[in-house]
Amino acid sequence: MVKVNPFYADLLPSYLFRDMGNKAREVKEKNPDAKIISLGIGDVSRHIPNTSIKAMQNALTEMADDSTMRGYPPELGYAFLREAIAKNDYQDFGIDISVDEVFVSDGSKCDVANVQELFAADCVVAIPDPVYPVYRDSNIMAGRKIVYLPCRAENNFMPEMPKEKVDVIYLCSPNNPTGAVASKEQLKAFVDYASKNDALIIFDSAYKEFVRDKSVPKSIYEIAGAKKVAIETRSFSKTAGFTGVRCAYMVVPKELSGLNAMWIRRTSTKFNGVSYIVQKGAEAVFSDEGKKEVAEVISYYLENAKIIKKGLEEIGFKCFGGDNAPYIWADISKTGLSSWGFFEKLLSRAFVICTPGSGFGKCGEGFMRFSALGKREDALEAIMRIKDLKEKGEI
Amino acid sequence: MVKVNPFYADLLPSYLFRDMGNKAREVKEKNPDAKIISLGIGDVSRHIPNTSIKAMQNALTEMADDSTMRGYPPELGYAFLREAIAKNDYQDFGIDISVDEVFVSDGSKCDVANVQELFAADCVVAIPDPVYPVYRDSNIMAGRKIVYLPCRAENNFMPEMPKEKVDVIYLCSPNNPTGAVASKEQLKAFVDYASKNDALIIFDSAYKEFVRDKSVPKSIYEIAGAKKVAIETRSFSKTAGFTGVRCAYMVVPKELSGLNAMWIRRTSTKFNGVSYIVQKGAEAVFSDEGKKEVAEVISYYLENAKIIKKGLEEIGFKCFGGDNAPYIWADISKTGLSSWGFFEKLLSRAFVICTPGSGFGKCGEGFMRFSALGKREDALEAIMRIKDLKEKGEI
Repeated sequence: MVKVNPFYADLLPSYLFRDMGNKAREVKEKNPDAKIISLGIGDVSRHIPNTSIKAMQNALTEMADDSTMRGYPPELGYAFLREAIAKNDYQDFGIDISVDEVFVSDGSKCDVANVQELFAADCVVAIPDPVYPVYRDSNIMAGRKIVYLPCRAENNFMPEMPKEKVDVIYLCSPNNPTGAVASKEQLKAFVDYASKNDALIIFDSAYKEFVRDKSVPKSIYEIAGAKKVAIETRSFSKTAGFTGVRCAYMVVPKELSGLNAMWIRRTSTKFNGVSYIVQKGAEAVFSDEGKKEVAEVISYYLENAKIIKKGLEEIGFKCFGGDNAPYIWADISKTGLSSWGFFEKLLSRAFVICTPGSGFGKCGEGFMRFSALGKREDALEAIMRIKDLKEKGEI
Repeated sequence: MVKVNPFYADLLPSYLFRDMGNKAREVKEKNPDAKIISLGIGDVSRHIPNTSIKAMQNALTEMADDSTMRGYPPELGYAFLREAIAKNDYQDFGIDISVDEVFVSDGSKCDVANVQELFAADCVVAIPDPVYPVYRDSNIMAGRKIVYLPCRAENNFMPEMPKEKVDVIYLCSPNNPTGAVASKEQLKAFVDYASKNDALIIFDSAYKEFVRDKSVPKSIYEIAGAKKVAIETRSFSKTAGFTGVRCAYMVVPKELSGLNAMWIRRTSTKFNGVSYIVQKGAEAVFSDEGKKEVAEVISYYLENAKIIKKGLEEIGFKCFGGDNAPYIWADISKTGLSSWGFFEKLLSRAFVICTPGSGFGKCGEGFMRFSALGKREDALEAIMRIKDLKEKGEI
């Protein structure tokens, strides 16, 4: 056989969500009448905005006629969408990002996984622990050295500053999985580190729409000097519910000498753009009506988060996140159960799924991630069941 | 700044289509009333099938309701589409490809560019000349050694067999840019080479739907033993006109020990699946009505190809391809012009765009690629204008 990439052998077996799914299926088979509620996945439950649906219907009508159909989209994104993003997500907030710094893609997962191709193989990469596993695995596949930045309760789950010189740092705020948000001062410390150490920050702000506290930055470019050291990724998935539609974008400032041009080269060579239909749907999110719809849905999820957090706190778990984020990070260590032990207990005894923190990294042990992106009635019912379990003394 | 991937510096400046666009704009500015006709691009001009439009409209309706909306698609593709592909594109032709060997993506360009990530960095890669540049550039970016397999008229543009041991071979039939098709015997020679040399074939059959000659293979898996040595990529772009919709698939047989599992790992880690809406549109292509619509459109393009080829031959150019492919590869060397010289002459004097063969590699010098994927009236008009130019003695 052909000689394969040797670094795949270094990947951890990463079957977190698959293992969760298998265990849920087992329980379902033994209890066919049970209604299993999932607060485990990070997927959305509310439909996509009507404004986007209408725009996509119109786009489909165009695609059905020779005289109006669209062929290959521009690899970097249609100008109408890049302009809408630059204006509505940056310039309207006083952030100087121009159209040719915005690149449309089919998902933040792809952007976050692909961006490392621009870096040399011997770059040292710093990754928070716990973490969204894509940062880690995409760099393991490329054979890079990784150092972990522990995130602990005493520091409100902000990653510790690297102790050695690193070349690339991944940050995510509002954070998946901890729901923590970085303050301007905390981000500034990372921007300063990057400036001093010739390092680059990959800033994942997929959950920025959940930030309602005005003192919390939604973009790393709110920090002076960040355009010289940071790339930012964002998504329509957790704002407009596009998880099943697929649209995102990445900002690569021109101040990042060379990287802007390299990303254009990478994208032109390896990507053929996002569906015209989808890009029209994404553009509509920025209409007045679209913004209203998105704000309403985000409020719904944030209310879920409040209900889940309050409920878990009443049960006696110390909780983090959930205020400007759709995730609640609950400390379950006092139960004496491991993350996986707690998962199995909740699943088998309350038919409730939540995600074991240890699945996101060693520092996640003793914690559980609860997602607020489900339906209201499920959040209410799940909390009732967990309370019941606590009253029975099972957790 | 961060240390960047050094191999980007080895990329050839690849501005073929951009240069063509710039030159076309210049001519348009000087001749604002001229109607420029393009037989240059490989993009389609006919709308996507009504059956697909209807399926996507229905999918949109589902996405507009909380109770029927779909979130994250499966990374490897929805079962309904993987099954439809395995059945309609393989099993119905007697080719034993199973659902778990089919992986849905957002485009063959991505698949062809991403698949090299599975191979070791020191693999030697063989690439035809002339060639679709993505094979070459994605491997240059990964720092691999490339050997070129010249394709010449005397061999009907089939790549020469590698003279040294190579690890990976890219093949494309029906070919872009030459329109040549490989016979079973020719493919068998490559399968034999790969079997003997522990090499892997990446077989790009994006244009398979244009094959009307029953003796010409549409899939490399028509060759005995190919499942042990070949990956195949295919697209809905040039069959159902999905260039602006984005859907494709890649077959990685389980016989390719390890690669099937590695591709699953790669895709699960770096990709979040294709839009549900798009996958429903792709599935509809396999309905009886969808197949009829596709066959009608392909016949239309093949008739264009016949018209263009006959016209160019009448003018005196020796032509290749165009019979089972949407591209005509015309030998213009007798004009004394280079490919770029011919391009400029045709553009400035006849307002017709075609693609300089040298843009696809050194062996393409003296040839031009004419695309039959445009509209009938444009094909007819373009040929008239080129005839006129010939009569005036300008070419």
